[in-house]
Amino acid sequence: MQIAIALYDHVTSLDAMGPYQVLQHIPGAETFFVAEQRGEISDDHGGLRVIVDRSFADVAAPDIFVIPGGFITRKLAVEGSPIVEWVRQAHTTSTWSTSVCTGALVLGAAGLLDGLDATTHWQAYAELAAFGARPTEQRVVRRGKVITAAGVSSGIDMALTLAAEVAGPEVAQAIQLAIEYDPQPPFDSGAPSKAPADIVDLVNAVFAEQGD
Amino acid sequence: MQIAIALYDHVTSLDAMGPYQVLQHIPGAETFFVAEQRGEISDDHGGLRVIVDRSFADVAAPDIFVIPGGFITRKLAVEGSPIVEWVRQAHTTSTWSTSVCTGALVLGAAGLLDGLDATTHWQAYAELAAFGARPTEQRVVRRGKVITAAGVSSGIDMALTLAAEVAGPEVAQAIQLAIEYDPQPPFDSGAPSKAPADIVDLVNAVFAEQGD
Repeated sequence: MQIAIALYDHVTSLDAMGPYQVLQHIPGAETFFVAEQRGEISDDHGGLRVIVDRSFADVAAPDIFVIPGGFITRKLAVEGSPIVEWVRQAHTTSTWSTSVCTGALVLGAAGLLDGLDATTHWQAYAELAAFGARPTEQRVVRRGKVITAAGVSSGIDMALTLAAEVAGPEVAQAIQLAIEYDPQPPFDSGAPSKAPADIVDLVNAVFAEQGD
Repeated sequence: MQIAIALYDHVTSLDAMGPYQVLQHIPGAETFFVAEQRGEISDDHGGLRVIVDRSFADVAAPDIFVIPGGFITRKLAVEGSPIVEWVRQAHTTSTWSTSVCTGALVLGAAGLLDGLDATTHWQAYAELAAFGARPTEQRVVRRGKVITAAGVSSGIDMALTLAAEVAGPEVAQAIQLAIEYDPQPPFDSGAPSKAPADIVDLVNAVFAEQGD
């Protein structure tokens, strides 16, 4: 079973690295990164440089693919973009087609989310809706073989859900225990409905700057 | 402010990538990876290849350092090991000295945990105690300027705790919201005290194999 996690320049690292840590433990799965071309990819912070060994052409029909997010997806999620074309093609044969954060916009641009409930980073609901999806605030949304996850860190929850689907709940629980995923954030500020209003304003302001 | 996250061959990726995602957002911080030598590092799964731009010699006195874990720490956490020597030296000038998972064994070997409450992956309490630490089951343990975190995914919680110390609770909350860290694992199996007994046995068996 091939599990391909797509990378591209300016990807948000944890969107990809969360699912990578979980999915690599699925028995019989080959979990790896893939990009438009083999070679080096840098993340959106610029501090992470990853060497990718396989191109989209090398991996035309993965069983499962994961599309992580990043600000840059606003530019990637357009007709004719190589990652959009790869997703459209891979989806025709995949068992599971998944995204984390604004990776959902790429799925949307490939036509996978039309008329579907889906989720993305809480900042990108409007962009997601523009692709015909119905944005929901759930952390992980499964509709048929399409699974979308909310912002950045949600890829860990999504991947555990996916591991349970693929390999059964016992395996998913064992992976959760192996990575000691017993989250205890020091604050309860992980969603706009839970964070103080001034914190939401602060993050909105920072994101607006980045989007410029 | 320099925040150096150490890498080495066979590191467990999320141990490093969780804190990296959080700490990079601290205003005024320069968050980067460091290794014994510049060049390529592979993780314990073998699917992640990272190019590291700075050596231990390049970064002798970071303000903050993070030591991630991996099975290989059992071999690294010995007298004379370059990462142990680096930690011992960096700790003399650091503001915060931190670890995730079995990265704590490296801190232990460098003498940072003698007589201190500390934590590590739940599988490695005995190894941690051998360095004079008092293992606790808390997810994040702060004693003075030393912060240790539990297994793999706990680095996210540790980094948010650290962000609050360094930059204040508002910044930490904003980072939590930006990465939408509102964890909702599909199972409650992330600690040995919570997972079903047969799942704990399964993970123990897998780890025993890896340790051989």
